[in-house]
Amino acid sequence: MAPKPLDVLQESLQKRVLVEMKGGRSFRGVLQSFDQHLNLVLASAEEVVDGTATPQGGLTLLRGDSIIYISP
Amino acid sequence: MAPKPLDVLQESLQKRVLVEMKGGRSFRGVLQSFDQHLNLVLASAEEVVDGTATPQGGLTLLRGDSIIYISP
Amino acid sequence: MAPKPLDVLQESLQKRVLVEMKGGRSFRGVLQSFDQHLNLVLASAEEVVDGTATPQGGLTLLRGDSIIYISP
Amino acid sequence: MAPKPLDVLQESLQKRVLVEMKGGRSFRGVLQSFDQHLNLVLASAEEVVDGTATPQGGLTLLRGDSIIYISP
Amino acid sequence: MAPKPLDVLQESLQKRVLVEMKGGRSFRGVLQSFDQHLNLVLASAEEVVDGTATPQGGLTLLRGDSIIYISP
Amino acid sequence: MAPKPLDVLQESLQKRVLVEMKGGRSFRGVLQSFDQHLNLVLASAEEVVDGTATPQGGLTLLRGDSIIYISP
Amino acid sequence: MAPKPLDVLQESLQKRVLVEMKGGRSFRGVLQSFDQHLNLVLASAEEVVDGTATPQGGLTLLRGDSIIYISP
Repeated sequence: MAPKPLDVLQESLQKRVLVEMKGGRSFRGVLQSFDQHLNLVLASAEEVVDGTATPQGGLTLLRGDSIIYISP
Repeated sequence: MAPKPLDVLQESLQKRVLVEMKGGRSFRGVLQSFDQHLNLVLASAEEVVDGTATPQGGLTLLRGDSIIYISP
Repeated sequence: MAPKPLDVLQESLQKRVLVEMKGGRSFRGVLQSFDQHLNLVLASAEEVVDGTATPQGGLTLLRGDSIIYISP
Repeated sequence: MAPKPLDVLQESLQKRVLVEMKGGRSFRGVLQSFDQHLNLVLASAEEVVDGTATPQGGLTLLRGDSIIYISP
Repeated sequence: MAPKPLDVLQESLQKRVLVEMKGGRSFRGVLQSFDQHLNLVLASAEEVVDGTATPQGGLTLLRGDSIIYISP
Repeated sequence: MAPKPLDVLQESLQKRVLVEMKGGRSFRGVLQSFDQHLNLVLASAEEVVDGTATPQGGLTLLRGDSIIYISP
Repeated sequence: MAPKPLDVLQESLQKRVLVEMKGGRSFRGVLQSFDQHLNLVLASAEEVVDGTATPQGGLTLLRGDSIIYISP
């Protein structure tokens, strides 16, 4: 049986990911944590708007139901 | 195993956070309380609109499903 | 352990609150009742539109999933 | 302990209520029935659009998740 | 105790109903079937757009979460 | 007792159906499979946009919560 | 009894699929994994915008509730 999507996400822990969200926002950061709702915590996160990255201090918690996709 | 996002949020209790919400609102305040739906209570909250902060007296309860992200 | 958001709301019972809702509506009134969905009942409620308050007779039940935030 | 919102709604049974719905519709009618999703049945309902009331024959079932608020 | 909304709907089985849906669509037809999500099956359904009725052959299944109200 | 909507859908298996979806898309195809969320699989599906049908090769899985109605 | 939609999706594992998402995005890639929410993982994914494909490195996790349809 194939691994489930959240098992795959497990392998991205401590790695940089790009998260595209509803409403046109996207974030880059190091994946610290996630749960079954796809709530995520990113470290060293930057919000990316029109190609410009704005650093967010500390940890950022993204609510899962606003997420469209997560990629490395 | 990595800590879950809500465990991470636990560490922000009694600290100032920024909460970005759907519809373009954002709030700053001291995180007093949260639950598994990401309902939050902020103390000394300010609503931030276009860079201008409006203080809200007392405690403000933000409904979780309107939240996009929470950061320090 | 910190009190949960709904425990905090419990302390607003019989007090005046401001409720901001999706779609630009807001209400002021005395919180009579709430449940775990954040359905609320306000007494002596007024709907506030562009700074003008319109009184609603009797009790008003607000559906929780249209609520953005509740503040004193 | 305060009564829950649906207990309060119980007291509006057989009384005239105003129901404001998402998308700008509102209805007036006699509350016949409701359930925990806030699905409602109104008798002698009128749809109110821009102050003009259009009678609906018989009973009208309103789906709860389109409801914003219910008032007397 | 008052009958629940779905008990009321039970009495509309085999009768003509009007169903108003999100996004401006409405349907008329004979109610054949419904479930607790308010999924409906109409026979001899017509889609009504701006007062013009377009017949749909056979049975039409309407998804409950797109429904705003059902009336006779 | 009347058959439930999904029992009615059962009778459309292996028959051509029209599926109208949120956002203005519609699909025609042979119903191969469905579940309780109204996720559907169509064979020989065509996407219909403004009266023009574009064939999709193989099987197409439509997510239930984007569906407005299904008709023959 | 007919196979369920997710059983059908099982047969697309390790094959190229097209995924159309809410908000006008679409992705092509090799289906690596899915769960009951239709969360998907694609390998060698490309985002397709107005006919132009942009490769995404590594694996891409698409959140199920943003998906409209999946086809081969």
